[in-house]
Amino acid sequence: MAQIIPLHNNKEENFNDCIKELSELCKEDLHSINTLILDKLESSVPLIHEIGKYLILSGGKRLRPLMTTSCYYILNNDPADKLNHIGLAAAVEFIHAATLLHDDVVDLSKDRRGKLTSNEVWGNKTSVLVGDFLFSRSFQLMTKYGTMETLKILSDTSVIISEGEVLEISNDKNLEMNEDTYFQVINGKTASLFSAACQVGGLSGGARSNEHQALKSFGTNFGMAFQLIDDAIDYFSNLQTMGKNVGDDFKEGKITLPIILAYGRSDKEEKEFLTKIVQKPSSDKKNFDSVKELIIKYNCLEDTLTRAKHFAEVAIDSLSIFPDNQYKKSLIKLIETSTQRIN
Amino acid sequence: MAQIIPLHNNKEENFNDCIKELSELCKEDLHSINTLILDKLESSVPLIHEIGKYLILSGGKRLRPLMTTSCYYILNNDPADKLNHIGLAAAVEFIHAATLLHDDVVDLSKDRRGKLTSNEVWGNKTSVLVGDFLFSRSFQLMTKYGTMETLKILSDTSVIISEGEVLEISNDKNLEMNEDTYFQVINGKTASLFSAACQVGGLSGGARSNEHQALKSFGTNFGMAFQLIDDAIDYFSNLQTMGKNVGDDFKEGKITLPIILAYGRSDKEEKEFLTKIVQKPSSDKKNFDSVKELIIKYNCLEDTLTRAKHFAEVAIDSLSIFPDNQYKKSLIKLIETSTQRIN
Repeated sequence: MAQIIPLHNNKEENFNDCIKELSELCKEDLHSINTLILDKLESSVPLIHEIGKYLILSGGKRLRPLMTTSCYYILNNDPADKLNHIGLAAAVEFIHAATLLHDDVVDLSKDRRGKLTSNEVWGNKTSVLVGDFLFSRSFQLMTKYGTMETLKILSDTSVIISEGEVLEISNDKNLEMNEDTYFQVINGKTASLFSAACQVGGLSGGARSNEHQALKSFGTNFGMAFQLIDDAIDYFSNLQTMGKNVGDDFKEGKITLPIILAYGRSDKEEKEFLTKIVQKPSSDKKNFDSVKELIIKYNCLEDTLTRAKHFAEVAIDSLSIFPDNQYKKSLIKLIETSTQRIN
Repeated sequence: MAQIIPLHNNKEENFNDCIKELSELCKEDLHSINTLILDKLESSVPLIHEIGKYLILSGGKRLRPLMTTSCYYILNNDPADKLNHIGLAAAVEFIHAATLLHDDVVDLSKDRRGKLTSNEVWGNKTSVLVGDFLFSRSFQLMTKYGTMETLKILSDTSVIISEGEVLEISNDKNLEMNEDTYFQVINGKTASLFSAACQVGGLSGGARSNEHQALKSFGTNFGMAFQLIDDAIDYFSNLQTMGKNVGDDFKEGKITLPIILAYGRSDKEEKEFLTKIVQKPSSDKKNFDSVKELIIKYNCLEDTLTRAKHFAEVAIDSLSIFPDNQYKKSLIKLIETSTQRIN
């Protein structure tokens, strides 16, 4: 594997340490968010409660609620309302959970974070419908805790997410997908909800227009960087880092930046090889290794990471208008270490 | 088949005539709603537009938008706003379309209204994701055209719909499902959205609290009657009436009132027969006919229709507080003829 140069020399802390630090800072709010999530998973239909708990309480990092909460506090305001950002953070987590359920059905995934997926345990039908429930519940939450402005942000985001998902399967196995289309896909699947999480946190904290724009940019760019690294990790890391198996995207025929770049830079013979492999991506380790070799040969891993670092730098810069406080410091470290997850 | 006594003696008009009459009354608004629906099916992702058009423009009756529009005009008000009910009617139709897409995936349906279902044409994955898009789009529409009150109604309704759907598959092939659970299922799958459609129409037209409550009751009870008749039609009618094949629900293992009643009234041997058949509902006409015979033997068709007529009467009575006008007259005829669809 190529040598990766970290963005900053803070190798002593990794991404998970930074998540822990931020979680500690937001401890009380995270507790409230979890309480609200549990409350809103209640349903007169027991199966909904069961699957909801299985999914939402299965040890995710709560990255999006953390972003909502830290963007609420980064403003250094003392907002009158102390509850709306909690409700909106829960709404964001419900949207995220709904998309995970539907993604696992669409991708026929069997495991997530080392556990069987809901569709493996309860079947695809139930997963589709419980996903719809979680999605509906998120709208109920945002109607209760949001304003017309935050409602617009979250409903627009839901449209962008689903458009991104359809765009992704429309480009299944399409090695000629261009980089802009890829960026639209990862904006849909990750960056848009990161951005919405940040925006609704800030707006609940009384963000003025320029602060709102800064948080929007922060969330989007952090999300883009995060997903680019995820896509690189799919080729070059292990189950511990990722919570999923290496090569999962590849096996599903998902086209991500490392292979888009490799295909574009390959000669005729290599292009034919990639086309053949992507059409029938078996679990044959030899083929997967050959694809990785092409990615390395044409510096596509470095270039993917360079793109990620570009977005990460924009995300960091966007926070410059905020006062220096512990939340800002932690978020910056979080972005920096997020691009080092592949080391 | 047992003889059905109509609720009122207006045999000269049938349900489809009444739909036409109401559509004529609401012609301009329906045109605006269709225009808005087409506009909101636009997406940068061509596949979304294609499937959305295929589904939404495939000749549905636009029953829910009709209810929104007629409940807007039944008030005899001259509301300042002339647009919000249009946007909310489109939002309701988008929710309906999203549930159809997901239902067809869940039920593995192959045709709807004499056309191939979207999942047959584009596959289950795409249908799940385009359903999510339509659902998100509906929230975008209601955020734009609604108030906090109508948003709460529509988001609460979405939760009820998905709970009803999960409750239904939780009771797959369960002949011992009780009647109350069945009512909760049909409230979720039909009555709740009928009710929401009526409520948001009325509220956009400036409905006062008692008028709002009346429209809520009207929609719910009409929806319950409508779904009960649909469930009876699944045993005792033909493709023309239903837009789907007779016995579809039965073959899918869906337990509806006619068979719930028949099972409850059957002797031990008949119960064993029904249990066996429901476990493996083949397309064997002989078995299906035997089930129908039991339904007839124990008066379960009449009793299903009696239940439907109960709800229909409540729906009609709930309109009594409104001034006599053409909209009220047409809605009453619509309810009356809806229970005669099985003749």
